[in-house]
Amino acid sequence: MKTLNVDLGARSYPITIGPGMLDDADMLREAIGGNSAVIVSNETVAPLYLKRVEAHLKGLRHEAVVLPDGEAYKTLTILDPIFNALLKGHYDRNTTLIALGGGVVGDITGFAAATYQRGVNFLQIPTTLLAQVDSSVGGKTGVNHPLGKNMIGAFHQPKAVIVDTETLNTLPDRELSAGLAEVIKYGLINDAPFFDWLEHHIDDLLARDPDAVTYAIERSCANKAQIVAADERETGTRALLNLGHTFGHAIETGMGYGQWLHGEAVGCGMHMAAAMSVAQGWLENGELTRIDRLLARAKLPVTPPLELDAPRFRELMSVDKKVLDGHLRLVLLHGIGRAVVTSEFDPAALDFVLTRPDAA
Amino acid sequence: MKTLNVDLGARSYPITIGPGMLDDADMLREAIGGNSAVIVSNETVAPLYLKRVEAHLKGLRHEAVVLPDGEAYKTLTILDPIFNALLKGHYDRNTTLIALGGGVVGDITGFAAATYQRGVNFLQIPTTLLAQVDSSVGGKTGVNHPLGKNMIGAFHQPKAVIVDTETLNTLPDRELSAGLAEVIKYGLINDAPFFDWLEHHIDDLLARDPDAVTYAIERSCANKAQIVAADERETGTRALLNLGHTFGHAIETGMGYGQWLHGEAVGCGMHMAAAMSVAQGWLENGELTRIDRLLARAKLPVTPPLELDAPRFRELMSVDKKVLDGHLRLVLLHGIGRAVVTSEFDPAALDFVLTRPDAA
Repeated sequence: MKTLNVDLGARSYPITIGPGMLDDADMLREAIGGNSAVIVSNETVAPLYLKRVEAHLKGLRHEAVVLPDGEAYKTLTILDPIFNALLKGHYDRNTTLIALGGGVVGDITGFAAATYQRGVNFLQIPTTLLAQVDSSVGGKTGVNHPLGKNMIGAFHQPKAVIVDTETLNTLPDRELSAGLAEVIKYGLINDAPFFDWLEHHIDDLLARDPDAVTYAIERSCANKAQIVAADERETGTRALLNLGHTFGHAIETGMGYGQWLHGEAVGCGMHMAAAMSVAQGWLENGELTRIDRLLARAKLPVTPPLELDAPRFRELMSVDKKVLDGHLRLVLLHGIGRAVVTSEFDPAALDFVLTRPDAA
Repeated sequence: MKTLNVDLGARSYPITIGPGMLDDADMLREAIGGNSAVIVSNETVAPLYLKRVEAHLKGLRHEAVVLPDGEAYKTLTILDPIFNALLKGHYDRNTTLIALGGGVVGDITGFAAATYQRGVNFLQIPTTLLAQVDSSVGGKTGVNHPLGKNMIGAFHQPKAVIVDTETLNTLPDRELSAGLAEVIKYGLINDAPFFDWLEHHIDDLLARDPDAVTYAIERSCANKAQIVAADERETGTRALLNLGHTFGHAIETGMGYGQWLHGEAVGCGMHMAAAMSVAQGWLENGELTRIDRLLARAKLPVTPPLELDAPRFRELMSVDKKVLDGHLRLVLLHGIGRAVVTSEFDPAALDFVLTRPDAA
């Protein structure tokens, strides 16, 4: 068992990572505090793990809200069943919302916790690799809008994050790969040694080797926690975490939420950012090859969907949250482990990756 | 012109009060900062004042969203036209939302600003007395749920509040009275000299005497700003501002949003809190008489609706945001200017005001 601390002053919280954490009642009870809790899960995860979590809530008033599964349901409307349960059950400001599931469940539950009675306690039990290394860390919560991903939301830090690495044993291969995209991202942003490690251990991760998985989660969370601690509200460097995301969000929104998994879109987006960095003269061709090779070994797509042409890509990218005063900002690479946020790029380099979807 | 500062560290902001403030372009432009703005108003206020505000936005990209008028529309759904306009117009994180209208417009616009791209700049131009003395100060934003008032929301401080006292000249009498309920509230909570002043000047206020109105707004905002500065997130004393609101919210929710104006319900709620305080032995009968007399002179109702019997009142009050771990907390009076938040009251005293709606 490993515990990391996300250092945010009064809003600091621990991330505990290890096998069998779901059976640790003390950890859960300590993070709850009040005398009631509502678990939010989905129809895929609830049959697998809900009872084990509920078993720790004896003596507390509690209930569960089970949502349909999928990014397509991450809309403002999905909040209705959660708010209805909270109000019908007379859950007060001291209640705790527990997110049990992947990134979608975490984002929705976190936003409900941020806005119910203007903010209640919130606890994350992420059950997908993507949620464990990304969406459970950093306090970003929210839902999608038909015109843009994650456009409606709030910053709301959890009280604790509990990662049971054994939950990955029930994760479909496709979702494991999607999670690996975010893991690879941390290597690319500012941890070249971790990227090297991943090149040597990607097959162990695909085989769900417990030690390799625990190490990858811990190192990813540590990377993210450090960046978030330096810039909680994303006024600066935190935007680095969006490597691959401007392209990726465009793919997700353009193809219809849920068609591409978030991690798949980010994987492809990282390839596009890397290819653009090469066109820009900032990244070596050999580095792009290493990146593409690792993405391919992680079974991630590196070719953007043919359905999206350059004008559509541009349109979708123009609503990105990093756009400021009309200027598109992108996360690009000056090398593996050297990402930068910049609006100063050659438009031709962007054209290059948008108009030749099979580029590089 | 008077300027008050709400002291909240990095989130501090000025409230500027005076006649003709709507024509002060500099004040508005300074609070905007970025190069775009979206004004949110309603179909009653927009024909009166929208063009005057828009005239100051030359050179900025801007548009207006005009909502239907009334508390009945303050739901999650009302956010759709705002988010649609923001996303279709490609308004980015540097944009400013401007609330031009009463408390409902302010609450909705503030919540949209709190959640669009996880938070954008926000500016209030309140045009009703109630919004000028209450909802524009303190950063509470949100919408109603069919099961409870203001149950979904966020704390989000404005960048500035601009109060043009001349907007009160177009305010219907009924809404002026509703605003006076919140003004009287500040006297009751902890400003007995202001309560005395109100007893002497209530007729001037009803006549919209400019000096009296300006003074009442300024003193109300100063009272509220002081309480909010001491407890921004309502972990303690800020709950005092809810004097009359637990009863009032029950009336609003129980009668259907928009039937009673918020201020009317609060006025009646303050009578109920005062009557309960007398039953409790905390307030003198003579003080209750003074309170009821001032409410009546302000043309506010002091009799709860006969449609709501005691069991229904209790049910509605049980979802109040001040309920903690099952205990109802109320704001009661130990005297005029001496309000307390307490769960330690005699249930018989509560029975007394709920079962005898014509009490006192």
